[in-house]
Amino acid sequence: MANTKYQYVRHFEQEETILLNTYFVVRIDGKGFHRFSDTHNFDKPNDLGALSLMNKVATEIVKSYGDCVLAIGESDEYSFVFKRKTTLFNRRKTKILTTIVSQFTSMYVFYWPQFMKTPLQYPPSFDGRIVIYPSLQNIRDYISWRQADTHINNLYNTCFWALVQRGNETTTSAEKILNGTLSSEKNEILFSRFGINYNNEPEVFKKGSIVIRETKERILERMETKPATISCPFSKEEIESLSDGAYETVVLHCDVIRDKPFWEEHATLLDLFVCL
Amino acid sequence: MANTKYQYVRHFEQEETILLNTYFVVRIDGKGFHRFSDTHNFDKPNDLGALSLMNKVATEIVKSYGDCVLAIGESDEYSFVFKRKTTLFNRRKTKILTTIVSQFTSMYVFYWPQFMKTPLQYPPSFDGRIVIYPSLQNIRDYISWRQADTHINNLYNTCFWALVQRGNETTTSAEKILNGTLSSEKNEILFSRFGINYNNEPEVFKKGSIVIRETKERILERMETKPATISCPFSKEEIESLSDGAYETVVLHCDVIRDKPFWEEHATLLDLFVCL
Amino acid sequence: MANTKYQYVRHFEQEETILLNTYFVVRIDGKGFHRFSDTHNFDKPNDLGALSLMNKVATEIVKSYGDCVLAIGESDEYSFVFKRKTTLFNRRKTKILTTIVSQFTSMYVFYWPQFMKTPLQYPPSFDGRIVIYPSLQNIRDYISWRQADTHINNLYNTCFWALVQRGNETTTSAEKILNGTLSSEKNEILFSRFGINYNNEPEVFKKGSIVIRETKERILERMETKPATISCPFSKEEIESLSDGAYETVVLHCDVIRDKPFWEEHATLLDLFVCL
Amino acid sequence: MANTKYQYVRHFEQEETILLNTYFVVRIDGKGFHRFSDTHNFDKPNDLGALSLMNKVATEIVKSYGDCVLAIGESDEYSFVFKRKTTLFNRRKTKILTTIVSQFTSMYVFYWPQFMKTPLQYPPSFDGRIVIYPSLQNIRDYISWRQADTHINNLYNTCFWALVQRGNETTTSAEKILNGTLSSEKNEILFSRFGINYNNEPEVFKKGSIVIRETKERILERMETKPATISCPFSKEEIESLSDGAYETVVLHCDVIRDKPFWEEHATLLDLFVCL
Repeated sequence: MANTKYQYVRHFEQEETILLNTYFVVRIDGKGFHRFSDTHNFDKPNDLGALSLMNKVATEIVKSYGDCVLAIGESDEYSFVFKRKTTLFNRRKTKILTTIVSQFTSMYVFYWPQFMKTPLQYPPSFDGRIVIYPSLQNIRDYISWRQADTHINNLYNTCFWALVQRGNETTTSAEKILNGTLSSEKNEILFSRFGINYNNEPEVFKKGSIVIRETKERILERMETKPATISCPFSKEEIESLSDGAYETVVLHCDVIRDKPFWEEHATLLDLFVCL
Repeated sequence: MANTKYQYVRHFEQEETILLNTYFVVRIDGKGFHRFSDTHNFDKPNDLGALSLMNKVATEIVKSYGDCVLAIGESDEYSFVFKRKTTLFNRRKTKILTTIVSQFTSMYVFYWPQFMKTPLQYPPSFDGRIVIYPSLQNIRDYISWRQADTHINNLYNTCFWALVQRGNETTTSAEKILNGTLSSEKNEILFSRFGINYNNEPEVFKKGSIVIRETKERILERMETKPATISCPFSKEEIESLSDGAYETVVLHCDVIRDKPFWEEHATLLDLFVCL
Repeated sequence: MANTKYQYVRHFEQEETILLNTYFVVRIDGKGFHRFSDTHNFDKPNDLGALSLMNKVATEIVKSYGDCVLAIGESDEYSFVFKRKTTLFNRRKTKILTTIVSQFTSMYVFYWPQFMKTPLQYPPSFDGRIVIYPSLQNIRDYISWRQADTHINNLYNTCFWALVQRGNETTTSAEKILNGTLSSEKNEILFSRFGINYNNEPEVFKKGSIVIRETKERILERMETKPATISCPFSKEEIESLSDGAYETVVLHCDVIRDKPFWEEHATLLDLFVCL
Repeated sequence: MANTKYQYVRHFEQEETILLNTYFVVRIDGKGFHRFSDTHNFDKPNDLGALSLMNKVATEIVKSYGDCVLAIGESDEYSFVFKRKTTLFNRRKTKILTTIVSQFTSMYVFYWPQFMKTPLQYPPSFDGRIVIYPSLQNIRDYISWRQADTHINNLYNTCFWALVQRGNETTTSAEKILNGTLSSEKNEILFSRFGINYNNEPEVFKKGSIVIRETKERILERMETKPATISCPFSKEEIESLSDGAYETVVLHCDVIRDKPFWEEHATLLDLFVCL
């Protein structure tokens, strides 16, 4: 066969597998999204359409991987958390990573027109990485780290754009004003200069987005009691039509740092009881 | 700062770099393209529009990475060959791989309407891998391996689809007929049953596509003497308007296995003279 | 400086670190010890001198690494278990592995004359590997695996050498007799043909050796109540002279598979309470 | 079988192989040899017995690995260079590295009494690493780097110990005198204060030691014309008794940086003609 003498080059391929019995995260980050968001006129500090597009894509990813138990996102990044016992693609690192990065990118472009008014001017891209966490505490801390980061970024950006859009500051002077300020000082600037109580800002901006499978009952309860903390692609009626105890994949904007109530309600999500 | 206590999770990130002074290939493969090509009514055995889309995307990738010296593709796969001296992203393996996989995917979806009549029904995806080759002979053999593979696949598919489309065979009986046949026998089937001389099949199908930077002079020469071996996004006039010795990125469908004439004409492409 | 132009070769060195917050084992195995034990007339099935030499070396290793919390050995192999929080050599994998393999080998040769009558005929060697375990259950199972292996090997070898040394069987016929036998059948052969009750065989052969730091009080208790399960390089008087609650590194020959009593008594050894 | 339920822990073992068609070096370094050399009264700046012991061990290693084509050493370090085509241990990185580190250590202790008057006071140890080089130039530069390093270290140490042993300087004042000096200045100090012409220092100190397989004819020629550049464990008569063209493993103290004469005489040693 003509290619027999060349086939030896296959033996240069090296395959890495993810250590067994560890959690891992696939984190995806937009490349050059500063320019991308300018070109496409994203609202500042947060563009609801762009966030909804990210959430749509993340929801589809979570739905297609049974072992992806949670995703958490903000701005142009998303982290997908996998169960420690998953055997997805035999835990081949490169296969898992490139497949998810490609699917994410593809859906982002594909679903763009459903969420954005400005037509796509040029193809956006993302990079990705896999990070392995051996313990429940580590993976919980990873999730907390991303949500704490969302809070810090959003408080800064809310201040920054208030100063620029409503305070007549240049971007340079806004940066100077905020440089080195504490959270409390940023809260104070928002309140005293613009009458903004940061606590009243939308949960989707303050907490970011968490994609999980949630029971019919908890979805309905949240829709009634804390509607600002859930972005559900389904109506209340559609959820009610589910059979009792059925799960649906939804997007939450709630605290995932503290034990209560999220982790107590989702105690088995990360194999709490099989953490050994 | 709120996230200080969680930041330790960053230290779990592990970074791998590609060994210095080695060639490497980023190979991208379509996921589930059997179904994807059915859904989108690709012509069989080869869909010129779909191949042109792949070539467009590959050309854009090559243009954006000065150290990507050659790309070779067939069907739903493409291999990007990088110089051994490249310092792209400090040779961080995951960064290089995920960025290129994402850009490839993004452009595939973005440029789809320019090349395909059927609207995109669902988002396609690709996986990718990086393979490292330490020597000039190894990387040449890799390129030969992909082109030999193109030949083998195309001869088989040409026969198979002739049997099905023109020979009234079922796919099952066509498979049986071809099972275990030599190349010479496939050529004979094509000729005796369908009057097809395989040698006269289009070069783009027989050789696949090679993306490289080529001088104005060689592009013009090829356009005149072997027009079937070049797919150039530019007209003869546009190429003629280039300054003497200028380079343009073009798609070739020529032999890249033998030394003559390709490798003798592109002797420095793979750092022949600095191979030590 | 003369070597400036060559120093770039340092950048080809690649360093791998052991994932944070994981247990790991350094396992050392004798190379060609079948021939080595023949040449040096080891007693069969177990040579007490050779085992004592292995235990001496392992004890010195454990003593020199505060984060090595347990070692378990049999025959010509030893496994060293490290705490998940250790920062030894910044968790550089190759540094940890080669240093311990070298120290083990060096001490084996150095202490040989203290334990063996036959002078060393040629230099013995060992290979080594590092295996990472992310959870307490995994590392416990590793330890259980090695002790279960000791049991299986020792029962087989005890039978085999009884058949050869006392049963006038050739090694070939002994192999045939034991081929495919269950543990119960091997016990029966020992009892019916040689009057050996396997349960009465020395604990050091049946359980292998476990090196740990143990409190004065537990050492003394074990010396009194289960002296066959401890090989202590110190006399009862020397242990009694330790201050209350002090630790000494000792060699045990006890069960480390079941929870009781070993793991209940050493509940914190593997960071039970910080397993998150 | 008793250990069946624990055997799953084997699947946590991860195996890395060395990229095909690359040279690699196993470099071994003494651990804590500053103290070790003091304890064992090594002559300063160089102890001929200790160097001969290192060379003996390295020679045995080279002899036992047909694919180890050259070793180069100085002081308490040795580098073993392997052919790019070697399939030793299926190129398993950890197996190759730990085996050689262990053999080196074992022989160092085993052969100690043959070379050293002071009995070994405590077991010495070495660490090791593997470095991969993809091209002939890279591996040549690695070898040059080590020999340039030998020169730099030996010139410094020769000066330093002349100042201390014959110049009545303290180690601190000697350090100060040499701090920042050029090679030419060190040569001048040696000559003007101590009448030492550095060029006349023994080749074994200036060039370090190179272990290779050498033909009978070249060994004899070197013995006659440049006896200071060879440490041969055999007499002239023994070499003469070899059959024509036969090889013997010898220790050289010659230049391995320049092409002439070493690399021209050993042009095929590193597969010069198959470097592709």
